[in-house]
Amino acid sequence: MSSYAVGIDLGGTNARCALINDKHEVLARNRCSTPVAEGFEAVMHALADLVKQTLSDANIEPLDIRGLCAACPGPLDGGKGIVIEAPNLKWRNAPVAQTLSRLTGIHSILENDANAAGFGEFWAGAGQGCDSMIMMTLGTGVGGAVIIDGKLRHGPSWTGGELGHVVIQDGGRLCGCGQRGCIEAYSSATATVARFREGLSIGWHSVLSEKDPNEITCADIFNAAKDGDDLARHTVEGTARYIAIMGSNMANLLNPDRMVISGGMIQAGDFLFDIIKKEYLKRPFETPVKHMEIIPASLGEDAGVIGAAGCVFESMLR
Amino acid sequence: MSSYAVGIDLGGTNARCALINDKHEVLARNRCSTPVAEGFEAVMHALADLVKQTLSDANIEPLDIRGLCAACPGPLDGGKGIVIEAPNLKWRNAPVAQTLSRLTGIHSILENDANAAGFGEFWAGAGQGCDSMIMMTLGTGVGGAVIIDGKLRHGPSWTGGELGHVVIQDGGRLCGCGQRGCIEAYSSATATVARFREGLSIGWHSVLSEKDPNEITCADIFNAAKDGDDLARHTVEGTARYIAIMGSNMANLLNPDRMVISGGMIQAGDFLFDIIKKEYLKRPFETPVKHMEIIPASLGEDAGVIGAAGCVFESMLR
Repeated sequence: MSSYAVGIDLGGTNARCALINDKHEVLARNRCSTPVAEGFEAVMHALADLVKQTLSDANIEPLDIRGLCAACPGPLDGGKGIVIEAPNLKWRNAPVAQTLSRLTGIHSILENDANAAGFGEFWAGAGQGCDSMIMMTLGTGVGGAVIIDGKLRHGPSWTGGELGHVVIQDGGRLCGCGQRGCIEAYSSATATVARFREGLSIGWHSVLSEKDPNEITCADIFNAAKDGDDLARHTVEGTARYIAIMGSNMANLLNPDRMVISGGMIQAGDFLFDIIKKEYLKRPFETPVKHMEIIPASLGEDAGVIGAAGCVFESMLR
Repeated sequence: MSSYAVGIDLGGTNARCALINDKHEVLARNRCSTPVAEGFEAVMHALADLVKQTLSDANIEPLDIRGLCAACPGPLDGGKGIVIEAPNLKWRNAPVAQTLSRLTGIHSILENDANAAGFGEFWAGAGQGCDSMIMMTLGTGVGGAVIIDGKLRHGPSWTGGELGHVVIQDGGRLCGCGQRGCIEAYSSATATVARFREGLSIGWHSVLSEKDPNEITCADIFNAAKDGDDLARHTVEGTARYIAIMGSNMANLLNPDRMVISGGMIQAGDFLFDIIKKEYLKRPFETPVKHMEIIPASLGEDAGVIGAAGCVFESMLR
């Protein structure tokens, strides 16, 4: 059977495509901007062109490809291959898998983007060698994926892995979802910046005090923390603490092998992960907590396309 | 292949044994007190006698039995069949499975007691018809089980399903495990009583005010709440709220089909579950939350022995 798969990672701004073999090597890749304004069919044609270009770059025919997987924002129904709703793509009930199959001549499946990135790390990145892995992505929000016994946990509604809305502080900070106390309202990049600004607003001094508060980024805060700024350090310690809480929650509940963290802030490296580790390892219970390491993702922006292709190989085993 | 299995549910006070067929019917059952003070070998002999008596009651030979599973308190290593530590049995590294195999002539395996009860409900009780189910047991502590795609989630350390130590209130109430804010410190029967007593201690009036605070039970509080007592009602609403939070956490993380609640307080029936439901259904996200019902367990004290026997049948499929 063919050992090639195509992975697509579709966002509201850009789309990426890669041809990948079953040893998770990227043989060719391309990207384009997503023509959201032109509608669903135009996006599908742009993706199909991207696929054709990528196969042509590698001199491989559609018939040589085992399958294609498009990683899309959700909610979606992977069983039916339909994106149910994607506000940033302006889609509702969009038949992605069927349309891509028709336009490319390659059997196509659909996966949630956070799940695809998680599966990418599991298959080819920081989660290699695990049987079970939790992915937590810290960006504007908090996304994630749960992989158990080598399989992504989709669940019957294809909503499994929504780590961001696990409540860790009942009655606490208001989350974008309307609930109070979600981990997303504490440990996302956005929440980290918000907590820092709140410190400034109550008069805490910082090297960033002179900056326009609306221009302060998560990277600014991490840099200031490294330079010994008290408020920045306090803010980063908070973020690390919430990651550690999520870590022990996952360790106790699911006893996974690893928790992989992705998102811009992992560029802080050991500076961040040492604080997480210190906070995490003192939590109960010793056995599952010690078993599950918390480490940074390793694939960067490739996680989505590699993971999508990995889902093609994995879906054959279902 | 034989369609009979033996389930044992071993506690620090009593041991139960049942002969069960693959339609989860109980054909015979017995119980005895656990001779903890006489040591490990004595307990094993007592269990073996219980098994022999049970088979004899049903006129079935050991050779007709597919297997035996002992549900024991943990931590334990089910792969090796060893209870690593059980304070209330005064055991350390106790080779339960091997010893029971030798004494009964029936191939024996070991399972965590909370997992066995969860699997019992999944196989034969409130979780029938599900693919995935969360069990949450509210007693002195909070125990649980996670079943995904029909399989108990043990994890490599056999510690999966420790729901009780998921943090839902960072920095909150001190839990017996040393961590603050665990669900166990809020929604267990013990915590429910503790929260009620705290209300009394700050001067809240209740119909139970005249009782010795140390004698107030969880059942007293539920009864008073039904009778319209303000503090009792407030306390029960708190317990229901924390169960609902755990429910939405599980729904978002794992998208299971059902969450089953066990423990003495489920005797309050609709009075409790209506409050849980009201609190739960307003939480995000609608799709997984609506999909996962929260309902009471249905097997009562039989869950452990039935689940243990179920684990015998399930282990053949692994």
